[in-house]
Amino acid sequence: MSLETFTLESLRADIEAWVKEIQFKKEPRNLYAPILYSLSLGGKRLRPLMCVATCSLFRDDTYNARNAAMAIEMFHNFTLLHDDVMDNSMLRRGQPTVHAKWDANTAILSGDQMLIEAYKLISDVDSPAATLILDVFNKTATEVCEGQQYDMDFEKQDNVTVDQYMEMIRLKTAVLLAASIKIGALIGGANITDTNALYDFGINIGLAFQLQDDFLDVYGDEKTFGKPIGGDIIEGKKTFLLITALQDASSSQKKELLQWLNNENANRSEKIAAVTNLYDKIGVKEKTENKIDELLNKAMRMLSAMEISAEGKRFMADFVSMLVKRNR
Amino acid sequence: MSLETFTLESLRADIEAWVKEIQFKKEPRNLYAPILYSLSLGGKRLRPLMCVATCSLFRDDTYNARNAAMAIEMFHNFTLLHDDVMDNSMLRRGQPTVHAKWDANTAILSGDQMLIEAYKLISDVDSPAATLILDVFNKTATEVCEGQQYDMDFEKQDNVTVDQYMEMIRLKTAVLLAASIKIGALIGGANITDTNALYDFGINIGLAFQLQDDFLDVYGDEKTFGKPIGGDIIEGKKTFLLITALQDASSSQKKELLQWLNNENANRSEKIAAVTNLYDKIGVKEKTENKIDELLNKAMRMLSAMEISAEGKRFMADFVSMLVKRNR
Repeated sequence: MSLETFTLESLRADIEAWVKEIQFKKEPRNLYAPILYSLSLGGKRLRPLMCVATCSLFRDDTYNARNAAMAIEMFHNFTLLHDDVMDNSMLRRGQPTVHAKWDANTAILSGDQMLIEAYKLISDVDSPAATLILDVFNKTATEVCEGQQYDMDFEKQDNVTVDQYMEMIRLKTAVLLAASIKIGALIGGANITDTNALYDFGINIGLAFQLQDDFLDVYGDEKTFGKPIGGDIIEGKKTFLLITALQDASSSQKKELLQWLNNENANRSEKIAAVTNLYDKIGVKEKTENKIDELLNKAMRMLSAMEISAEGKRFMADFVSMLVKRNR
Repeated sequence: MSLETFTLESLRADIEAWVKEIQFKKEPRNLYAPILYSLSLGGKRLRPLMCVATCSLFRDDTYNARNAAMAIEMFHNFTLLHDDVMDNSMLRRGQPTVHAKWDANTAILSGDQMLIEAYKLISDVDSPAATLILDVFNKTATEVCEGQQYDMDFEKQDNVTVDQYMEMIRLKTAVLLAASIKIGALIGGANITDTNALYDFGINIGLAFQLQDDFLDVYGDEKTFGKPIGGDIIEGKKTFLLITALQDASSSQKKELLQWLNNENANRSEKIAAVTNLYDKIGVKEKTENKIDELLNKAMRMLSAMEISAEGKRFMADFVSMLVKRNR
C-alpha cells in the first residue's frame, strides 16, 4: 500500500479492525470488560490515524505501525477513563462512563491496566527505532499527566494567563497528537529533521484542535458538535475564550461577565446568550479564530518546507482540514 | 563489591540512598509532591532489596540493578497509592495516605504518574537482557492488577476456596517479589535455568510472606507487627485463616463463626478473642503454620538445588528468615 492506494477512510477502517482484534483473557472479568467497553465507545481514532498516516509518508507497508497506533489509542482511552473518574462525568460519547456503568474502583483499576496494556503494545513495536519510540512514549505520557494536573490546578486558580493556558493544552492535548505523528514517522524510517518538523507540525495542529473545541462549545452547531452548546460557559470553565475575554474586557465588561459567571441560579440559555454576547463585544470570537488560523498557517508552512512527496503533503493537509475545520 | 563485602544492611543503605536521589521537576507541584511523599513513607524496601541481592549473586557490581530496583519500588508504591484510594484507607505506615493528605483525584493522577515513572526507570536498564526485563515487568504489572481485581471480587463473593485465595495472593503479592528476584538475576547475567528457579523460589517465599501476614494479624505481637491485632477479623476479611476455618469447621463451629463475623455490634476484643478461639479449635493456627513451613521448605529445596555459591545461598536463606520468620 502507499498513499496512492489508500485514503483516510481506508486507514480508518484498518484501525477499527485492529481495535476490534484487541482481546484479553476472560477473567478477571471486572478488570478486562471495562477496557473493551471503553475501546468500543469509538471516537474519531485521530491519534492512531495520524500515526499510521505519517508512517505511510515514508514507507508503503504501514502494518509495522499497528502496535504503536494501538498503544496510543489505548493510552488515550486510559486518560479518558481516569479523567471521567476525576471529573465525575457520567457520559462519554453519549454512553455511560465506566465508573457510571461499574463503579469508581473498577474505573481506577481498569484504567491502570489500560496504561499497562499501552506499554505492552509500545514495547512490542518491531522497529530499529524501538528504544527511541519508547522514550517518546514515556516523555509524552508524563506530559499528558502534567497537563491534566495543570487543568485541575487552574480550576482553583483565579488568574490564569493565555500563555499558561496554551502551555496546559500543549501538554494535555497537543503532545499526544504530535507524538502519534512522530512515532509514525520513526516507524516509517523518516530522518531526524523530518521527524522533528512533523512533531512541531503536530503540536501546532494539536493546539488548533483544542482551541477549535473551545470555540465550538460556544459558537458551534449543536448537531455537528455532538453535545449541547454552552457547557463550558455554564461550568465556568477557563477556556481560551474566557481567559481572553477576562484579559481584554473593559472594567465594566469584566464586571458584567463575572456577575453572569458567578450567578449559579441564572437561566441556562439566558446565561449562555449573555456571555456569548459579551464575548462578541470583547472580540473573543475573532481573536480565537485568528489564533486558530495562525496556528494552522504555521503548521502548513512547516508542512510545505518538508521534503516529502506532494501527494503526502496533500494527504496531511486534507487530514488537518478534516481535523480542525470540521465545523466552521 | 561482592557478597563477602556487603550485608543486607549495606544493601538497604544503598537502596535508601537511591530512593532519596529520585527527584522531579518542581511543577506541577500537586503531581510530583505526592510521589516523593509516598516514597518517603519508607517501608522495608523488600522488593528492591531482593532485586539487588539477587543480582549480587551473579556479578560484583550491583549498580546496574539500580534503575530496575527503583522501578520495582516505584511500581509497588503506585499500587499502594491506588489501593489506598480504592479501600478508602486513611493511614499508611502510620502516616496520612496521599488521598487523605491531598484528595482522591490527586492520588489517582499521581499514582498514574508513578506507574509511568516506573516504566521510565525499567526502560532505562543498561543490560543485554533489557527487552526480556521489560517483558517480565509488563507481565508482572498485569498480574498484580489481576490480583487486586480478584481481591476486590472476593469481598462480594460468598464461597472463596483456598485454591482461589492462593491464586489471588500469588498474583497480588508473590509475582512482584518473584519478578524482583528474576530481574535481579537477569541483570546479574544468570542463565535461564537459575533465573527460572529463582523466580519459582520467589513465588514460594512471596506466598509464605503473605500467609505470614495473615497469620500475624491474628497471632502476632502488636509491638512487632506494627498495627493492632485482629483487624482482619473485625473487617471480616477473607484471609487464608478465615477461608480455612470455614472449610474445616464442623457445622456448629461454622454457625458460631458466622454469627460472630456477622455481628457488627460485638465488642471488638470479645469478637477477636471468640473468633481466635474458634480458629484454635478448628486447627487453623497449625494449618497456617504448616502451610507456611511447606512453602518455605519448598523454596529452600529450590535454593539448595541451584548452582550458586554457598555464600550466596546463605545470604538468600538469611533474607528469607528476615522476611518470613520475622515475628514467629
